[in-house]
Amino acid sequence: MNYFERLADRSRKAGSLVCVGLDPDAKRHRVEDVAAYNRAIIEATAPYAACFKPNLAFYEQFGVEGWRALEATLAAIPAGIPVIGDAKRGDIGSTAEAYARAVFETWGFDAVTLNPYLGRDSLEPFLAYPGRGLYVVCRTSNPGAADFQYARVESGMRLFESVAVTVTQWSANIGLVVGATAPAELRRVRQLVPHASLLVPGVGAQGGSASEVVAAAGNEPGTLVVNATRSIMYASDGPDFAEAAAAAARALRDELAAAPSPA
Amino acid sequence: MNYFERLADRSRKAGSLVCVGLDPDAKRHRVEDVAAYNRAIIEATAPYAACFKPNLAFYEQFGVEGWRALEATLAAIPAGIPVIGDAKRGDIGSTAEAYARAVFETWGFDAVTLNPYLGRDSLEPFLAYPGRGLYVVCRTSNPGAADFQYARVESGMRLFESVAVTVTQWSANIGLVVGATAPAELRRVRQLVPHASLLVPGVGAQGGSASEVVAAAGNEPGTLVVNATRSIMYASDGPDFAEAAAAAARALRDELAAAPSPA
Repeated sequence: MNYFERLADRSRKAGSLVCVGLDPDAKRHRVEDVAAYNRAIIEATAPYAACFKPNLAFYEQFGVEGWRALEATLAAIPAGIPVIGDAKRGDIGSTAEAYARAVFETWGFDAVTLNPYLGRDSLEPFLAYPGRGLYVVCRTSNPGAADFQYARVESGMRLFESVAVTVTQWSANIGLVVGATAPAELRRVRQLVPHASLLVPGVGAQGGSASEVVAAAGNEPGTLVVNATRSIMYASDGPDFAEAAAAAARALRDELAAAPSPA
Repeated sequence: MNYFERLADRSRKAGSLVCVGLDPDAKRHRVEDVAAYNRAIIEATAPYAACFKPNLAFYEQFGVEGWRALEATLAAIPAGIPVIGDAKRGDIGSTAEAYARAVFETWGFDAVTLNPYLGRDSLEPFLAYPGRGLYVVCRTSNPGAADFQYARVESGMRLFESVAVTVTQWSANIGLVVGATAPAELRRVRQLVPHASLLVPGVGAQGGSASEVVAAAGNEPGTLVVNATRSIMYASDGPDFAEAAAAAARALRDELAAAPSPA
């Protein structure tokens, strides 16, 4: 079973399209407290999670001890819930092989986010792991997305559209990262690649709307997960942070489940 | 003094344009041997090095112990020789801030390589460290470079040309990564940005020619460093590996110094 099938199974079982981000904020935690905080968030939100997604930056920022916190975080995620390593790596040849080894062997992620700029052979070492998923960054949720992703290329498409069409043809194990903050572009990507699996960040703290995401991208399990991080992890600053995270994850699950789909 | 001025100073002092890559091959080393091997390479090649460049993938692949090896490696590099963290990171907002903290505070790199795909605000957290340098990936040395970097955009330029012109206007602390394997494209980038600092990988094991690089990009200290990794680190498989590395670094320094420049 490939990664997207496993994701679909988990999504159906949990009745959820929610991806719970696990990005510890250095302003809120000392590194030695990160693992326990994450464990509490994971335990509270697991019933509502289609998948979890630690962004490696938030562990890397703490140095060696941050990586130990990532180890402990990954160990706390229940079996059967896929875990995406949000790494957005992109490098060539033997370097891409080393990154693939890091994310799939050393850390054991089920899927990884990658950057398309270096082209096909920068993705191939990751495709060599057949049960794993790749999400290639397509249209991001930040203002700078317009700087290069919107460039109009020969085909008449914009660069992010060309990326969407091109990389999903390379392998059935490749999905896309498309931000929730630009619903028109998300709809456009869905038109171009009707069956591709999309990882959509940008709801919650970044301001994207869950119902607009479903209206644009559909709600077929395995083809969509919607990530929220800060609005779940830091739903409360008090001692009830885990209960508040559970409530926020459940609310997002329910909002996504109730949203009308275009199909 | 900004990073490129410090690089120019070191380059003049060493009479060298050589960037020595420090990428431990997992097929050759157990993680516990990496730091000692790197220390021997650093000690042997430092006289010929304008800068050093560990690629983070090669430490990340070893997990937590790999990051300890990176710590020990960085500690072994003599003061006054700039160190580039080859990370090719690219992410948004608070995530980019976390990566900037990782590379400049946690690890203390003098410069970092970054990916342009996510646009200006993905670079800004790195620019907030005024004494540090950014090398934005422009035209890479791999076959997949053609997949997106060669797309013809509205201006009539190809994407990598547009990246070169655009990002170097954002800050004087931004240089470019341009591969040695395509000298015509390197020459084109140099025409577009005559004063930008270029980090040029791809000589040695990847087959690019040092003299062609200088012919295309000039040899003004601070505006060019040429990276070689495997051809230096693994110049010999025997116990003379450090002497062989020194000889390879010196030979590359001399080849670059002897190459006719276009100016």
